[in-house]
Amino acid sequence: MEYRFSDRISTLKPSAIREIFKYAADPQVVSLSAGNPAPDAFATKQIGEIVADIFATRPIEALQYSVTEGYPKLRAYLTEYMESRHNIGRAFDDVLITSGAQQIMELAAKVLCNEGDYVICEDPSFIGSLNCFRSLGAKLKGVPVDPDGMNMEALEDALESTPNARFIYTIPNFQNPTGITLSLEKRKKLYALAKQYGVLIVEDNPYGDLRYKGENLPSIKSFDEDGIVIYSGSFSKVIAPGLRVGYCVAPEPILKKMVVGKQGEDVHTNILAQMICYEFLTRYDFDENLANLRALYRRKAQFAMDLLDQYVVPLGITYHPTEGGLFIWCTLPDSVDMADFCKRAVQEYKVAIVPGSAFLCDEKDASHCFRINFSTPSDEKLEEGIKRLGKFAATVL
Amino acid sequence: MEYRFSDRISTLKPSAIREIFKYAADPQVVSLSAGNPAPDAFATKQIGEIVADIFATRPIEALQYSVTEGYPKLRAYLTEYMESRHNIGRAFDDVLITSGAQQIMELAAKVLCNEGDYVICEDPSFIGSLNCFRSLGAKLKGVPVDPDGMNMEALEDALESTPNARFIYTIPNFQNPTGITLSLEKRKKLYALAKQYGVLIVEDNPYGDLRYKGENLPSIKSFDEDGIVIYSGSFSKVIAPGLRVGYCVAPEPILKKMVVGKQGEDVHTNILAQMICYEFLTRYDFDENLANLRALYRRKAQFAMDLLDQYVVPLGITYHPTEGGLFIWCTLPDSVDMADFCKRAVQEYKVAIVPGSAFLCDEKDASHCFRINFSTPSDEKLEEGIKRLGKFAATVL
Repeated sequence: MEYRFSDRISTLKPSAIREIFKYAADPQVVSLSAGNPAPDAFATKQIGEIVADIFATRPIEALQYSVTEGYPKLRAYLTEYMESRHNIGRAFDDVLITSGAQQIMELAAKVLCNEGDYVICEDPSFIGSLNCFRSLGAKLKGVPVDPDGMNMEALEDALESTPNARFIYTIPNFQNPTGITLSLEKRKKLYALAKQYGVLIVEDNPYGDLRYKGENLPSIKSFDEDGIVIYSGSFSKVIAPGLRVGYCVAPEPILKKMVVGKQGEDVHTNILAQMICYEFLTRYDFDENLANLRALYRRKAQFAMDLLDQYVVPLGITYHPTEGGLFIWCTLPDSVDMADFCKRAVQEYKVAIVPGSAFLCDEKDASHCFRINFSTPSDEKLEEGIKRLGKFAATVL
Repeated sequence: MEYRFSDRISTLKPSAIREIFKYAADPQVVSLSAGNPAPDAFATKQIGEIVADIFATRPIEALQYSVTEGYPKLRAYLTEYMESRHNIGRAFDDVLITSGAQQIMELAAKVLCNEGDYVICEDPSFIGSLNCFRSLGAKLKGVPVDPDGMNMEALEDALESTPNARFIYTIPNFQNPTGITLSLEKRKKLYALAKQYGVLIVEDNPYGDLRYKGENLPSIKSFDEDGIVIYSGSFSKVIAPGLRVGYCVAPEPILKKMVVGKQGEDVHTNILAQMICYEFLTRYDFDENLANLRALYRRKAQFAMDLLDQYVVPLGITYHPTEGGLFIWCTLPDSVDMADFCKRAVQEYKVAIVPGSAFLCDEKDASHCFRINFSTPSDEKLEEGIKRLGKFAATVL
């Protein structure tokens, strides 16, 4: 039978990153293409203790249907924590627990965008979000990214020229894929522009707690006295991604619509996972856990940059020094065909990297960049992978 | 700030059932309005053992990112199990694990329907599915339900008059809310009509394993030699709903698109929950578990029907005798205003039931029915609730 698919889904391709995972399954290939936390980042002992306790004392609660808004204790804790720790949340805001932060992007687009409406995005940006906006029929308007974040003149032009823009999507800290952080000045400017044009902001902050160098900056949501910012947080990088738990702080009228959308998607988020997150936050020293993660990634990031300096940079490939998050963004000289470079790297030299074009609002635009990840591979694999990259680069540069 | 929402979500109200949950939170209220498995239906000891073993032997696997398609062992097991046990799945089919069966409905509508396309539904039908189709901009075409399932003449008229119908949505076993089962003859007819009109079928089967009376009927998917049926299975009623694990057996080209949609929704389903389901299916006697559940619900259903016969039926309220599932569908005499009856029942007599109009494709259509659930309340609560219903009914009938 010939199947006919919806327009919104027909044009979508599977994420290039997940496609590259298929190559990465070849044991010969060193994968620098993932975005997984390091295996030693997981507090397996504590989570094991929590789960044992839950099944010893209140198994029914962990197995029965629950409310769409999320595990009440976790919501209450996050309300207090985000307010006291990050100045996030006002009287008009509320908290929704989601099945990973990915679901926040999906629900935001579902409740805010009609088909054909625009989302203004950093260009490049996280492919998972771009694809989810596309899958709801939203169009993408890309804004170039400077070393201190979204270009504000281009953003203003985009707002001016796109009357049906519904929200600005930004990853302000250690953006995926570039690792770039939006400066404080630009955060304020972005907020002011959004307010001026009556456009909402979706602030996606999965990596904010993983700054291993420099000073933390206030979130855009912390400025939000007008109810125009939807803040997205995630436990994927600071507890465990397999749990699929994210949290959204946003004005109540918006959250209420997102709850209606979520009822139709998955009724509620896995309740055991929500209980694990709550217990992990309250029973153990979460700050110590974050400090351990920062130390781990600080070391791994430096190790990766040292290797790049030794094997890759001398050949003319540059990179953006990382201060947080899990990725390093590399740029090839103009003379090199990036797509061909990435393809040959995995096929001939058995090292998987992600082509920069995968992250563009329009994948047909030119890119000379690629993304490498340093959190997933072991030190040995990381060294071997970057050496292979250098060996291959030496043949084309 | 005035928020503007998408057309698809603006018209959607929160599920009437979940709204009634708010009344049901009043400890004075006896809730017959839920759809939860009985608390004693959960194999807490076995699931506790499984979880302890997972954290003792392979915690990283349970916590790390996984693939969108689902936990490979669970997919492989279900492929074999559904084929050997239910004759479900052909060479052209594949299996996708989802975050509850609700996500299957959402993904089916997302990949198959453009906004304005139609889904043909039993009328009444499960409100969660109706709302999820609406939330993607699909329109609903209702087909009345006879005591042996969807009316086939009305279905054919609907197919004839709705050229942009994309699929027929059916719950063939112990349909929610009516408890009605589609007869074998009508299953064959429905399949033949779908094939004739080039329309797909979404077969939603959360209750199929919970037949406690009469003979099992083959699923529509078991006839599917043409690749036109999307089958939806769920562990919510046979393991635990809090885990949020469903599974879809459908032609591979459709599943591939659903995978792309799922990447943008939640990346993958909670991996620990998938591992729990796999271990529960393979390590313990799943048939024995099902037999226990059937015995439990057979007893509770009979208890509820006996109470209805004693306290409610003599007043002129009728019900559809249930042979499986978790609900009993009751019909008021024409003289009674159903909406008012349900509202006064909870407000004045502290017993929560679900108004039948909540399940209609067009909520403004007339309904004299209401749904009661017998699985969630204890025997004591069930008796008290039905007595209250009788007491109240005696004042209006």
